[in-house]
Amino acid sequence: FPALPGIYQRELQMYGRYTQELGVYAKEEAARLRDGGVRDGGGLRRNTSVRSRAADLLDYEKEPCAKCHLCASRCQKFLISRVGEDWIFLILLGLLMALVSWVMDYAIAFCQEAQKWMYGGLDSNMLLQYIAWVTYPVVLITFSAGFTQILAPQAVGSGIPEMKTILRGVVLKEYLTFKTFVAKVIGLTCALGSGMPLGKEGPFVHVASLCAALLSKFMAPLFGGIYMNELRNTEMLSAACAVGVGCCFAAPIGGVLFSIEVTSTFFAVRNYWRGFFAATFSAFIFRVLAVWNQEEETITALFKTRFRLDFPFDLQELPAFAILGIACGFGGALFVYLNRLIVECMRKQKTINKFLLRKRLVYPALVTLLISTLTFPPGFGQFMAGQLTQHESLVALFDNRTWCRHGVAEEFDYTSHHHAWKHPQVNVFITLILFIIMKFWMSAVATTMPVPCGAFMPVFLIGAGFGRLVGEVMATMFPDGIHADGSVYPIVPGGYAVVGAAALSGAVTHTVSTAVIVFELTGQISHILPVMIAVILANAVAQSLQPSLYDSIIRIKKLPYLPELGMGHHEKYNIRVEDIMVRDVRYITLISCYRDLQEMLLTGQLKTLALVESSDSMILLGSIERLQLQSLLSFQLGRQRRLEYLRRLAQDNGNHDPLPSLNTDSTPSSPCSHTHINASTNTNARQAVRETYSTLTRNYAKMTFTTQEFRSCSVLSSFSLQIAEWEEQQLDEPVDFKNCKIDPAPFQLVEQTSLHKTHTIFSLLGLDHAYVTSMGRLVGVVSLKELRKAIEGSVTVTGVKVRPPLASFRDSGNSTSVSEVTELHKLCIRHRGLSLPREPNFDDDMCGI
Amino acid sequence: FPALPGIYQRELQMYGRYTQELGVYAKEEAARLRDGGVRDGGGLRRNTSVRSRAADLLDYEKEPCAKCHLCASRCQKFLISRVGEDWIFLILLGLLMALVSWVMDYAIAFCQEAQKWMYGGLDSNMLLQYIAWVTYPVVLITFSAGFTQILAPQAVGSGIPEMKTILRGVVLKEYLTFKTFVAKVIGLTCALGSGMPLGKEGPFVHVASLCAALLSKFMAPLFGGIYMNELRNTEMLSAACAVGVGCCFAAPIGGVLFSIEVTSTFFAVRNYWRGFFAATFSAFIFRVLAVWNQEEETITALFKTRFRLDFPFDLQELPAFAILGIACGFGGALFVYLNRLIVECMRKQKTINKFLLRKRLVYPALVTLLISTLTFPPGFGQFMAGQLTQHESLVALFDNRTWCRHGVAEEFDYTSHHHAWKHPQVNVFITLILFIIMKFWMSAVATTMPVPCGAFMPVFLIGAGFGRLVGEVMATMFPDGIHADGSVYPIVPGGYAVVGAAALSGAVTHTVSTAVIVFELTGQISHILPVMIAVILANAVAQSLQPSLYDSIIRIKKLPYLPELGMGHHEKYNIRVEDIMVRDVRYITLISCYRDLQEMLLTGQLKTLALVESSDSMILLGSIERLQLQSLLSFQLGRQRRLEYLRRLAQDNGNHDPLPSLNTDSTPSSPCSHTHINASTNTNARQAVRETYSTLTRNYAKMTFTTQEFRSCSVLSSFSLQIAEWEEQQLDEPVDFKNCKIDPAPFQLVEQTSLHKTHTIFSLLGLDHAYVTSMGRLVGVVSLKELRKAIEGSVTVTGVKVRPPLASFRDSGNSTSVSEVTELHKLCIRHRGLSLPREPNFDDDMCGI
Repeated sequence: FPALPGIYQRELQMYGRYTQELGVYAKEEAARLRDGGVRDGGGLRRNTSVRSRAADLLDYEKEPCAKCHLCASRCQKFLISRVGEDWIFLILLGLLMALVSWVMDYAIAFCQEAQKWMYGGLDSNMLLQYIAWVTYPVVLITFSAGFTQILAPQAVGSGIPEMKTILRGVVLKEYLTFKTFVAKVIGLTCALGSGMPLGKEGPFVHVASLCAALLSKFMAPLFGGIYMNELRNTEMLSAACAVGVGCCFAAPIGGVLFSIEVTSTFFAVRNYWRGFFAATFSAFIFRVLAVWNQEEETITALFKTRFRLDFPFDLQELPAFAILGIACGFGGALFVYLNRLIVECMRKQKTINKFLLRKRLVYPALVTLLISTLTFPPGFGQFMAGQLTQHESLVALFDNRTWCRHGVAEEFDYTSHHHAWKHPQVNVFITLILFIIMKFWMSAVATTMPVPCGAFMPVFLIGAGFGRLVGEVMATMFPDGIHADGSVYPIVPGGYAVVGAAALSGAVTHTVSTAVIVFELTGQISHILPVMIAVILANAVAQSLQPSLYDSIIRIKKLPYLPELGMGHHEKYNIRVEDIMVRDVRYITLISCYRDLQEMLLTGQLKTLALVESSDSMILLGSIERLQLQSLLSFQLGRQRRLEYLRRLAQDNGNHDPLPSLNTDSTPSSPCSHTHINASTNTNARQAVRETYSTLTRNYAKMTFTTQEFRSCSVLSSFSLQIAEWEEQQLDEPVDFKNCKIDPAPFQLVEQTSLHKTHTIFSLLGLDHAYVTSMGRLVGVVSLKELRKAIEGSVTVTGVKVRPPLASFRDSGNSTSVSEVTELHKLCIRHRGLSLPREPNFDDDMCGI
Repeated sequence: FPALPGIYQRELQMYGRYTQELGVYAKEEAARLRDGGVRDGGGLRRNTSVRSRAADLLDYEKEPCAKCHLCASRCQKFLISRVGEDWIFLILLGLLMALVSWVMDYAIAFCQEAQKWMYGGLDSNMLLQYIAWVTYPVVLITFSAGFTQILAPQAVGSGIPEMKTILRGVVLKEYLTFKTFVAKVIGLTCALGSGMPLGKEGPFVHVASLCAALLSKFMAPLFGGIYMNELRNTEMLSAACAVGVGCCFAAPIGGVLFSIEVTSTFFAVRNYWRGFFAATFSAFIFRVLAVWNQEEETITALFKTRFRLDFPFDLQELPAFAILGIACGFGGALFVYLNRLIVECMRKQKTINKFLLRKRLVYPALVTLLISTLTFPPGFGQFMAGQLTQHESLVALFDNRTWCRHGVAEEFDYTSHHHAWKHPQVNVFITLILFIIMKFWMSAVATTMPVPCGAFMPVFLIGAGFGRLVGEVMATMFPDGIHADGSVYPIVPGGYAVVGAAALSGAVTHTVSTAVIVFELTGQISHILPVMIAVILANAVAQSLQPSLYDSIIRIKKLPYLPELGMGHHEKYNIRVEDIMVRDVRYITLISCYRDLQEMLLTGQLKTLALVESSDSMILLGSIERLQLQSLLSFQLGRQRRLEYLRRLAQDNGNHDPLPSLNTDSTPSSPCSHTHINASTNTNARQAVRETYSTLTRNYAKMTFTTQEFRSCSVLSSFSLQIAEWEEQQLDEPVDFKNCKIDPAPFQLVEQTSLHKTHTIFSLLGLDHAYVTSMGRLVGVVSLKELRKAIEGSVTVTGVKVRPPLASFRDSGNSTSVSEVTELHKLCIRHRGLSLPREPNFDDDMCGI
């Protein structure tokens, strides 16, 4: 059997896909040309000189105005109805999320009640009690993990890292589908119902985004094209993130701020109101549902505190708050580190890894078994308030009474929540310390389970516990308060709990807005200064030690992200694009032939390629997507043209044996310089590909040929060598860019752009790559990868160089470098046809770049 | 006397300035060439092919690494010390602003006490009392206005509009100087001390920014170059704005959010912590000073409220809160409208305007007289609580007791503030209504006075009054509360006052964060839902009716601003750059001659001009600033070259009479096509300019010639006509761009970029203009002006066309328009040297643009 060149085999595999796409393109192109023809025919763009173009524009301007005057008022109405849509959308989103949140809370409370009821009913037999206590969460978690795994594995985990990536402009497939929504909601309910130390905040951000995406899809056919707009979808998604946090904690302001801090790098203030409106509405409905269900008398905070208002804290307590904040900062960094360590440890241990990959449900079941065993109330749980749910613990920790003051056990009998902390033999301090330590590692382990879960609430709880501990210590040390003159104001350990909760959760998530969340959650803002001081200190400590939990997960999951410029890393102002850009840019020129395209596609993996005028001038004209080039190539070598050629060949040659043609000179007269592939193909391909050709031809035929064509094809199989030659000829033809979508203005930077500015632009505009040009000429390219490396300070990859710190001493005054001057000079000379100047500085050799 | 061409006279005026700049340039250029030469000599940029360049880069990479290893650790230390600087800077800023705020408050309180003391001491004689009551504020305000006028007129007004403009990237001169700081602080103290309805919030934003700018300047020599970085200064200024609000209200969170909403369009989340840290520190110190001064026992809120916590409001009160919010929205819009109306009215009335311009202090004095007369307590003031300061009124309005419940007068006797609201004959409702109406117009008028003053606090007070009114009405209607079952929870009118204050100030400033400010100001967050609902509704109403107060002032002052895209104006997604761009771009080409430059400079006022390859290819190479071109031109026609020419002429001609040379053919052989100016100059210039030449020559000589040169010059004056000719020749020479700074990558957009995206990019990057390119070719330019017009919907200017709303029906799929395809086609043909294709669609005439 005769040979098929390698490229053709490749094309064969992709064939079905591209012919379809090509058809679509052809139609689009035809439509475009038609439209364009009409427009051009209308005399809009006929003139070449600048002056006459402007005059023409005035005609253009008059023309449609007369027509549109009538339509204007109609459009006005149309647009007003669209303004309404935004509100309707946000109200619907808020309503939906409030309902989801409330129903989920109800279901979780029911689950936890059921567990308690089972546990309480079996108090005669400790073993039965233990089995009931342990089995229940294991079953729930296993179900949650299995259900999520089967329906939508994307629903696993928090969702905030993914939302951060999506809002940065990256498309993550399957993250915003209905399946994921169902998996996330049901999985989360089961996971939280199990009583494990898991949170609902992170997943709720994801659920709200899912809701928004689905609502958009649902409203698109009803209201028309606006729901298709990508920018608008991003705006709605960021509002949705705010709703997610807002309706989870009934904290609209904190929700908006938290979602901004956690998901955005740059925030458009004009989108502010969307988040506030939707989050407020959602929080309102969420709390109204509680009133309607007669859980509450009126709308109040979720974890209402009752600290005294007249003297919330003493000025001299502030150092204690500051120390608490710093300690929480270290604790937060430790939590992030521990969490990452567990994940990485499991990945590295190959035997564990293999086992876990095969039995995906074993890991969550084992973890749940361990944690629930340790919290078993008659066992170790009695020393760490193991019987309380997260909600009950938090209410107890935020209580405004002092636990240690009148001994341990005195004041604990009015609510059932409190006697969990009292133990006949053990001091309340020991209970608190055990609670903090056990919950700390339990939470870090539990959040690595493959179920939908967040880490905010467990961390918040640990922080509250730690704060309460510090507060109780302070209350023991200063039983009558610190205030010197006059009235006695005893220390309020509950206030410390609030501060600790905000500080630790702020440290783990690297946010300041947890301060606002605690105010909204507790309904009291009296501790604003201690909370702010502790949160800021905790953030300062944690940010200098570890990335935030969400950034850590982004790195573990290897999502396409752009790291933040750290605080105060001023050297970033002095690294320039020229220091980090890749100078070996892959480009195609206007005079490239298809062989260049082929080589480019085979050797590189870039998504877009630069189009320059010529490799001599290097003037950047635009960029072309890889897909477009592939379709150009597959069109050139495609079925249509191949068949045409074969038919022509059949008409010309009749039934001659094609093999003698092998002996003719098979090297075509190539206008293209790259002929080495050509040569190698012609010598080796015959032997190597001959064997596979028969099967390939059959597959090829099955895929795309009709039976009649197949018959003609099998007849024509003897022409295959001629086809190979024909292919070579085709590859040497210059590329026809006419049917190709070109981005006519890809983003450009200058060599002198600072890293700081580049980072800003990349994160602002969500860029993937940017070309570096100098006087219109392409000199390099910077992609997310290079930028990431520059920021992280790695210099290991060849072709990428991070300027040494010494760069900061560089003179910053020169905005035009010498290369530009000489470059410009050269251009001038080229245009004026002058000879090179006499100055010895401007050696022609030096003008390379 | 012989003629000087017009351009030269112009250049003459600018001469001294440019020669100096040229000298600097020459030095810079020389240094640059030297450096560059060394670098190039080091083998960095010698290669032309892409491959070898990459290989070379690897060498480059190895080279400095060896050197820098040692330096790296030193740099590390250096950088760490810089991280500290940020903190030091923010702490200093916070400390300074807290001190300024506290001292100012103290001084204001002292002023007001003094007025009360004078007024109280003269209670025997009503006339004397009146004179004392009125004279005091008139003197203070007149002093404030005069002092500001003399020292720094930039200190007048709020300062937030200016800060918004500065943070957008516009340089406003004199706004951040020490003079302005002094004028603002002293002027503001006097203005607020007078007791007029003025606020300190807006000016404090300005004062804090001034502080930051001065601190930067002060720290620059101590800590080095980092304080010179423009980006960093912007970051610090936005932190300063937060500090300004934060230390004014002791509201760190609200301060940060308010300053973001008011000054930014896009906010970098990485700058968040700066604002929070500085504002918290500032608020902390501000309140600590109060404790230290024994005004307070401990740190608490500024206007502490004592509403009940267990049942803050009933669910059924929410409609009343919503109505309050909507009414505040209308009120806020009315306030902005009234404020603008007063300013515009004064400007239009020419007689008033003239009078006011001459006697600048009369207007504030008159306004103060009117307002203080109306608030005179024994007069009309008794019906509107005129004797209370803003602080006292606010404390009274936020009180948690109901005023109307037990009749008017019962409960009012425990604090002195409250009896002001009680009047023996008049109902409390009437007092409140009068208070609201009078304060409303008084505040609108007072804020137009040329003194440093803000409008936030007066508006806040009016809102509180209105809320109190609604609350009292509710309390009268439902004396036992609305709640049906069980316990009686009476309505709290103070809560309505809080809601009203937040809603009205939110409506006037178009911000949501006033909600957070009231929580921090009152120290209670229990009314979060009513406040949020009212604020959002008020914003929705106000934003649809009027711009914010700050935007209104920006428009009045004609600051260079970019209006916001309104909420939900979805048609913005469908207007494209090609619809709004100016197609008649002013450009210069590489082959332009100096005459083109001259013409361009004389006819246009653009700050930057595009540089294209040639008017045929129109490939955009960069942009050049006007200043650079002017210096190029003045160098070409400058003293140095002129003298050289004269000397040469003197050597050649000896002492010949130069006049005969007029008779020679004076039209030079021009390589440039624009010779009409040339011709006209030669015929008219002789007669017209001859008269002025003698004086000019003298001036010219006085300015730049030494005495010796002057002598030679006067000898040479007979050569003047030859000089005119020489100038003509010089103008026809091609421009030498070598000594000219070129921005090698000006910002580019594509024709298809949507208005929405354009707006985003402009506001993100603080652009002034952007070129529109298609395949590297310049096709248009969009500046802030066009964008502003497009957003505001005006279509009156020629050359700018806003696409009709019908554009929204346009197919959005075509990213490559037909013109690009044909353009590309043409380029290909040019490069391949092929003939035009046969397709009838691609008429060469149509490829114009």
